[in-house]
Amino acid sequence: MPQQVDLAVVGGGVGGYFAAIRAAQLGMSVAIVEKDKLGGHCPNYACIPSKTLIHIADIFYAAQHSQEFGINASATIDAKKMLEWRMGVSKRLEDGVAYLCKSNGVDVIDATATFMSSDSLQLTNGVKLEFKKAIIATGSEPTALQGFEFGSEVLDYKQALMLDHIPKSMAIVGAGYVAVELSTLFAKFGTEVHVIARSDVLRTFDQDAVSVVKKRMQELGIVVHAGATPISHDNGSITLSNGEKINADTIVVAIGLAPYTNSLELKNTKVELDEKGFIKVDSALRTSDPNILAVGDVIGEPMLAHKAMRQGIVAAEVASGSNTSYDNMVVPAVIFSDPEVAVAGSVEEVSGIKVTKFPMTAIGRAIALDATKGFAKIAYDSDNVIKGVEIVSDDASSMISEAALAIEMGATLEDIADTIHPHPTYSESLQEAAEAALGRPMHFFYGAQKK
Amino acid sequence: MPQQVDLAVVGGGVGGYFAAIRAAQLGMSVAIVEKDKLGGHCPNYACIPSKTLIHIADIFYAAQHSQEFGINASATIDAKKMLEWRMGVSKRLEDGVAYLCKSNGVDVIDATATFMSSDSLQLTNGVKLEFKKAIIATGSEPTALQGFEFGSEVLDYKQALMLDHIPKSMAIVGAGYVAVELSTLFAKFGTEVHVIARSDVLRTFDQDAVSVVKKRMQELGIVVHAGATPISHDNGSITLSNGEKINADTIVVAIGLAPYTNSLELKNTKVELDEKGFIKVDSALRTSDPNILAVGDVIGEPMLAHKAMRQGIVAAEVASGSNTSYDNMVVPAVIFSDPEVAVAGSVEEVSGIKVTKFPMTAIGRAIALDATKGFAKIAYDSDNVIKGVEIVSDDASSMISEAALAIEMGATLEDIADTIHPHPTYSESLQEAAEAALGRPMHFFYGAQKK
Repeated sequence: MPQQVDLAVVGGGVGGYFAAIRAAQLGMSVAIVEKDKLGGHCPNYACIPSKTLIHIADIFYAAQHSQEFGINASATIDAKKMLEWRMGVSKRLEDGVAYLCKSNGVDVIDATATFMSSDSLQLTNGVKLEFKKAIIATGSEPTALQGFEFGSEVLDYKQALMLDHIPKSMAIVGAGYVAVELSTLFAKFGTEVHVIARSDVLRTFDQDAVSVVKKRMQELGIVVHAGATPISHDNGSITLSNGEKINADTIVVAIGLAPYTNSLELKNTKVELDEKGFIKVDSALRTSDPNILAVGDVIGEPMLAHKAMRQGIVAAEVASGSNTSYDNMVVPAVIFSDPEVAVAGSVEEVSGIKVTKFPMTAIGRAIALDATKGFAKIAYDSDNVIKGVEIVSDDASSMISEAALAIEMGATLEDIADTIHPHPTYSESLQEAAEAALGRPMHFFYGAQKK
Repeated sequence: MPQQVDLAVVGGGVGGYFAAIRAAQLGMSVAIVEKDKLGGHCPNYACIPSKTLIHIADIFYAAQHSQEFGINASATIDAKKMLEWRMGVSKRLEDGVAYLCKSNGVDVIDATATFMSSDSLQLTNGVKLEFKKAIIATGSEPTALQGFEFGSEVLDYKQALMLDHIPKSMAIVGAGYVAVELSTLFAKFGTEVHVIARSDVLRTFDQDAVSVVKKRMQELGIVVHAGATPISHDNGSITLSNGEKINADTIVVAIGLAPYTNSLELKNTKVELDEKGFIKVDSALRTSDPNILAVGDVIGEPMLAHKAMRQGIVAAEVASGSNTSYDNMVVPAVIFSDPEVAVAGSVEEVSGIKVTKFPMTAIGRAIALDATKGFAKIAYDSDNVIKGVEIVSDDASSMISEAALAIEMGATLEDIADTIHPHPTYSESLQEAAEAALGRPMHFFYGAQKK
């Protein structure tokens, strides 16, 4: 166990272990201090478990709802077996991170860390760890709701992804992407699902996309209680502000994430927080303390794993003396709804920006697979430079990286339109959207004026 | 019915209708002459039907083989219902093309066309159609095999995709991507499938990818008879050159495609063919006849729909007087095998080119979904410019467009590595492959020397 390192990384989640491995590759001596599971929330509690269960729910649902294709099936779900798979996946990823740390020469210390100064940490295992540089990557934690405190009766998203049974009914308080993903997957398993939305589902997203997702949620029997707040819960039910009483064997609160800086004792450093509790950093991810950097959820929105990963790499390079900065133009985001919604940049029609849209109803592959709900949208400026892309479609998660690359490289509509996209694929939607904007739509007729 | 047009397009397949619509958008009067179904092979007989059946087979198979996820299901397939869906999809697409032609002002003539001269066609409906320019887009037809002529006993791929039952046994003569797709889909429905390969499966593809596909075919019970040729067939069986006799309720010959120029009477024009029977064109898709251009399968490899589409657009622009040419650097190709194989450019390790490879076993999403068979490969030059990409993975078809765009734009490894790819997605494999080549692999340890 080291007592002195070039770089101490506080938190072994995706931001932390990316930073640690990259720093080790650059020749620094590195230790990660992690109090729970290596890999953090993403592989253990969040991204990976949710996508695992969503995939299983999709197979389960598709098996029983493909009569139009000629498939007749009856299926049962063994929730304990499913949980075993889901936990096994997390364990495999956690072990994988441990192996990667070891292989790259990163020490992993199982402890909670508290800053004693700008160059030392007190660990709960008694060790005092001195560092030249530190990277804070402590992430976030689920926001609690008064009257619905987390416990055995009220679950956070982490617990909701570790159920060993399919609940008969479920109420999800919150209406962001977590609520959408959870509600959709459990509805596909047959749970009666209620979503309690203070205003409405996915309020901050493009409403064109949201309307597709909401329609599908409705088809799946999910009841959205828009404009309602939960007042109390009792014995398998929740009473709402509008007086309604709804079934809720299982109650999940998913109203957001708060940056996690508890127990760090940042007052012993020069690190400063903003008014929302996020650690303030500059473009090189340096905090107000010259020795300390920070990455991921703890420094602000978007609170997404891949943003933390990229920042981890950049912070490691900065810590090792490189003159670099975190200057990505876009952080793509995916909602693993049905269909998936993937965004890179903004597709809002603001001054100087036009938006082209192509419907999945005109994409051969989508017609073939009965997956025509959705569209591709591209926002572009007066020089046809692409500024934002949104894809609402099956496989959108696999396609949005093309858009991210296009934006980072300053691609124009012509670049997308003239690149051959293979047929028959969903990715043609992006090409067709670009072609439409250039006045040469192929598989959709926008009317004579837009020929 | 027009007697004189600016542009006559011979063949209403993807190359033809893309050319026709684009030319109409550019102000030309245009007629398509099509002897069979508008849309041609791709939506009616080939790409779309195969992908439709593959998707249905995947649902059917996944339903019954997801015990590890906790799903227990029994399923039956109603082949007549499946055929109904598949034919319905083709009909919808065919009708869609008719609508698009009409909307764009393209006349569609149901006839076979024969060239009378360099500016006129004789149609089988009696009309003589005069043109200023013509585009030949007649495509290709399945190559016949001596002793196994197409008919009621020996099917081509088109007929194999129109079966109203699941054969008990099937022998596929040929070992290209069509044979791989057909064999995999029918094996998933429970057919005993034999593939008769003169040399071996997917001989011209990257053997790294092929080995993944072959292993999966074997798991599915497909028997590949490598190095064998079929001698005779009789009463539900085939005798091979090695003396073996195999079950073959259904016999499919899929040994290739030949350019279709029959009945065109090109001798009445200045159009020339090459030694393989393809129409010779220059980079602007002009034939040896100043009035006549040609696109798609009929001008050569690769015989892929999306190549024909792009060429259709370019040919229309050239025909209308634009100074443009067909100059795409890559035509991506997808085998809809299990897992999918998608390629853009070459990933061969030749002089001046290095190749980086990242395994799907180290991709979180792949681990979560038990889809770890495969990898991403990037070929790059000494300036790190990306020259070729291969992805072997679920969703590869949706991801290869990023690679095509990268190559067309001259992207480097750094461009891919520094673009945030969303987590958890299969597309991270491309980013990780690029990062590995740059000496900063994250989720895979290549050994100390490659840190």
